[in-house]
Amino acid sequence: MDRKKLFDQIARKESFLCVGLDSERSKLPPVLWGSAQAQFSFNRSLIDATAPYTVCYKPNLAFYESEGVKGFAAFLDTCRYIRDNYPDTLIIADAKRGDIGNTSRMYAEAFFGEGLVDGVTLSPYMGRDTVAPFLEYEGKWAVILALTSNPSADDFETQPMADGKPLYEKVIRTSMQWGTPDNTMYVVGATRAETIADIRAVVPDHFLLVPGVGAQGGSLEDVAREGMNKMCGLLVNSSRGIIFADAGNEFAAAAARAAREVQAEMRGLLGRYL
Amino acid sequence: MDRKKLFDQIARKESFLCVGLDSERSKLPPVLWGSAQAQFSFNRSLIDATAPYTVCYKPNLAFYESEGVKGFAAFLDTCRYIRDNYPDTLIIADAKRGDIGNTSRMYAEAFFGEGLVDGVTLSPYMGRDTVAPFLEYEGKWAVILALTSNPSADDFETQPMADGKPLYEKVIRTSMQWGTPDNTMYVVGATRAETIADIRAVVPDHFLLVPGVGAQGGSLEDVAREGMNKMCGLLVNSSRGIIFADAGNEFAAAAARAAREVQAEMRGLLGRYL
Repeated sequence: MDRKKLFDQIARKESFLCVGLDSERSKLPPVLWGSAQAQFSFNRSLIDATAPYTVCYKPNLAFYESEGVKGFAAFLDTCRYIRDNYPDTLIIADAKRGDIGNTSRMYAEAFFGEGLVDGVTLSPYMGRDTVAPFLEYEGKWAVILALTSNPSADDFETQPMADGKPLYEKVIRTSMQWGTPDNTMYVVGATRAETIADIRAVVPDHFLLVPGVGAQGGSLEDVAREGMNKMCGLLVNSSRGIIFADAGNEFAAAAARAAREVQAEMRGLLGRYL
Repeated sequence: MDRKKLFDQIARKESFLCVGLDSERSKLPPVLWGSAQAQFSFNRSLIDATAPYTVCYKPNLAFYESEGVKGFAAFLDTCRYIRDNYPDTLIIADAKRGDIGNTSRMYAEAFFGEGLVDGVTLSPYMGRDTVAPFLEYEGKWAVILALTSNPSADDFETQPMADGKPLYEKVIRTSMQWGTPDNTMYVVGATRAETIADIRAVVPDHFLLVPGVGAQGGSLEDVAREGMNKMCGLLVNSSRGIIFADAGNEFAAAAARAAREVQAEMRGLLGRYL
């Protein structure tokens, strides 16, 4: 999906919400206990409930791979379900892959080959070799980790380089040469809203995928004020706050309510800052 | 497997060879074309042929995940086969994972939970949160990317930090505080033998997993001279040079010959530098 189509969807749904499908098996509601396809069933209900308010789904591979072959199948089934039923919706595989050369090409083929997903999160540590193969697919996205929302982002990401600027800025300034705003996004945590303005100055046109709103304490208002550009340029992720809004069997209705609430706030912010 | 047992195996086999099971489906020999379990069959034959000369197997997840559910099953079957038939041999999942908190815990559980593998390669970009959950499993290894063997390692890994030292050294000096030489290894490419001595000075006791010998041009002699410590402290990886030593149906015999040649050289180096 190209940037124009993504923006069209944002404008139509008046939302820049990304729902993180961190569908940890042990947290699934009682009605699904014992079901052979519990993770996929959970996701399907969630997707049907939240699709009107959501422009992007982001399954995190960890929660599927940890269930072995069955979990991996649930991930694939989930992507296919979104693709078949909500073809306008972006799918980002939150895989944080980062390998090189031939191996990176295999990962790119795994995720993009059959059109399964639209974007993959990538760790930039090993440099251009990890990202380049993902940029060769028309209409697909390399979603590069820049400044993440976890406490230990300060171990390396925010550490100063020889020029005094933090590593994450070096990552952005270097990697923005590899692709374009049409095939590259950056992960920028919402817990550091004060830096979103700085990053927006470096990459005025790129989409930013922003986790950390809600459960991790970031403010949606701050993110929109500092980060929105003329094509919105933001995908704000919420995972637990939506998919586990209710721990019981009413999870889908609760998720729909939670997503609708976020979307209502986003509509206001789009009106104010776009 | 703890460090003592790993060293015992190295001493017994007179080898510090790690065979990378980068079993790309399109490169498998004709005899396996059309086989439903081609990747696993290929690996099983390779493992049986090379086990006498090999102390570690390192399947790279990319080559399995790119084949979907069937590939993921082949990865799991391969690990179980090694575990059941060569229980003394180390298994490192070359996954280059790097996620945080809850998600990182899911990955740790995925790989270590049932004792499937002994170590997982991890990308350090997001800091301690990505590594910590892997250190909680007794006898398991976090294998942290430090200085990799690809050309674009110079994009970030070798870039100077504020103190003038390269990022990879910062990664090593910081992360060596998180664990011990009994649960942490570092990936250090053989294409940069001149830096192996420097790294060895920083981490005298840690095992280094060294790719880049052979196809990528590094010298085994250089690596051993600069990097060996009193428990060997090296696992030198070879992938294509062994598993695709012969592109035809005699792949297993050719792999055995190639592995035996490397092992013979390693025996000499152990005699000289241990």
